Amino acid sequence: MFYDLIIIGAGPAGVSAAIYAKSRGANLLVLERKQVGGLIRNVSKVTHYTGIIKEETGISLASRMEEQLKEYAIIVKNEEVVETNLKDNIKTIITNKETYQAKKVIIACGTNPKRLWVKGEERLTGKGVRMNASLHKELYVNKKVMVVGGADGAVKEALFLSNFVAKVYLVVVEDSLVCIDEFKKKILTKNNIEVIYHSSVKEFVGLDKLESVIIKNNKTNDETTINCDGEFSYIGSSPASGIFNEVNMQDGYILTNSMMETNLEGVYACGDIINKKVRQVATAVAEGAIAAISALTK
Amino acid sequence: MFYDLIIIGAGPAGVSAAIYAKSRGANLLVLERKQVGGLIRNVSKVTHYTGIIKEETGISLASRMEEQLKEYAIIVKNEEVVETNLKDNIKTIITNKETYQAKKVIIACGTNPKRLWVKGEERLTGKGVRMNASLHKELYVNKKVMVVGGADGAVKEALFLSNFVAKVYLVVVEDSLVCIDEFKKKILTKNNIEVIYHSSVKEFVGLDKLESVIIKNNKTNDETTINCDGEFSYIGSSPASGIFNEVNMQDGYILTNSMMETNLEGVYACGDIINKKVRQVATAVAEGAIAAISALTK
Repeated sequence: MFYDLIIIGAGPAGVSAAIYAKSRGANLLVLERKQVGGLIRNVSKVTHYTGIIKEETGISLASRMEEQLKEYAIIVKNEEVVETNLKDNIKTIITNKETYQAKKVIIACGTNPKRLWVKGEERLTGKGVRMNASLHKELYVNKKVMVVGGADGAVKEALFLSNFVAKVYLVVVEDSLVCIDEFKKKILTKNNIEVIYHSSVKEFVGLDKLESVIIKNNKTNDETTINCDGEFSYIGSSPASGIFNEVNMQDGYILTNSMMETNLEGVYACGDIINKKVRQVATAVAEGAIAAISALTK
Repeated sequence: MFYDLIIIGAGPAGVSAAIYAKSRGANLLVLERKQVGGLIRNVSKVTHYTGIIKEETGISLASRMEEQLKEYAIIVKNEEVVETNLKDNIKTIITNKETYQAKKVIIACGTNPKRLWVKGEERLTGKGVRMNASLHKELYVNKKVMVVGGADGAVKEALFLSNFVAKVYLVVVEDSLVCIDEFKKKILTKNNIEVIYHSSVKEFVGLDKLESVIIKNNKTNDETTINCDGEFSYIGSSPASGIFNEVNMQDGYILTNSMMETNLEGVYACGDIINKKVRQVATAVAEGAIAAISALTK
């Protein structure tokens, strides 16, 4: 199957690119491994993107993105890209189901959340460990939970969870929260959030469901066991760029110029997978628009 | 009055900058000459911005922007900036009402729509000439109107007007429409839009309201009088940068780097007023976010 353009990834960057490309007449295909919306779907509350609706959640924003794709009759196939040949004039994209070809390719597959790599994590994932605040909240009403991380993502979800759980332990490796001022101020208004500084998770305990977490104070090396029913990690993410070994990268992030062009003719990248300073829905959406316009005006 | 940050302009770029700046704890002031939303408010239908609601209009998007500003308790003063001193460490902004000072300034005052500069335009502006499709549509139900311009903005409004007027004359200076494919296809489905190519408006006729428009065929020099009740110009816009003579510009557009820094320390610019390739709500919103983050992390 041959297309003008294949977009890999349907998060904010890929969706924006698809809408712009379609409006400019491209015969295009979007390949998405998981769901439209990408990581934004996991966010309990979308806060700073201009034009959001009241009480916007990741799911409500992702739903409108899906509607926009439908309105433009854009084809999204639920397939995972496993191999690519991007150097030739005609680009080849091989998924777990099919082989596609296109004149142009936009890489917009974002990042994967990092994991802690500690004892018990693998065994208990989905059984209390690495849970999603937005999707699993009803499981934790009036229970004790742990959030790991001290940046915007972690603090935002700790605040969200604190509205219905009994207690949130917020485990932060730094000596202070490294989030924005807005969230720091909100934390002070919550009396069921306990912030545990300069500490790391050492082990998840429980046979077939999480029972407790052993954390280590990195200053004193003291270990403490905290009983809790759910754990939510927000410790950053890594670019999902493993298969794109033909494009130039830095630390796994794809290098682009301001028009979202990579080092390969006809190959563009946008969103969280690129090397950039500001990682927000707003920047991803703009880069998607630029990538599509760039791809279709050459 | 002294602020951490003054943002000039409350269009998509200025609003985005304000939300990000407030979330990062800045004591800030937004100055807006007209209305929150800027030129987007004049657009009948917002089409390609990711996350828009169904049947989004410029007014509905601008209303949500106003709500977001309110939610963050951001002060917007309805004042026009008439003079600035941006070179010193402490920046001074003088409006038609007041003098303000700030550590940082973000310039986000966008563009002004161009006018045709033809006979009768000045006299009949607001009396049938230079009308706004979105705001004045009820005046033109079942009437004849003229839209001037051949790019996205003009064709979009011609399509919008065609839904309720009797007839749209679309006067285009080029030999073909220079809009996106989506709009070209839609034009073909409308039998009440007549496109008049390689032609320009020569004169607006009417004593105290528009009665007809004289257009000139630029190939034959023939002049034709077209009777119509309303005229809508979408012939581009010019940067509203006249007063910012301290910052470096190109063709009136402010020069920035990728972090939205101008040549002056502590002065940032974003949105349609900057020198860039892609002018969309999406890019303005991203640049606003970047400008605010940039201003508040230095």
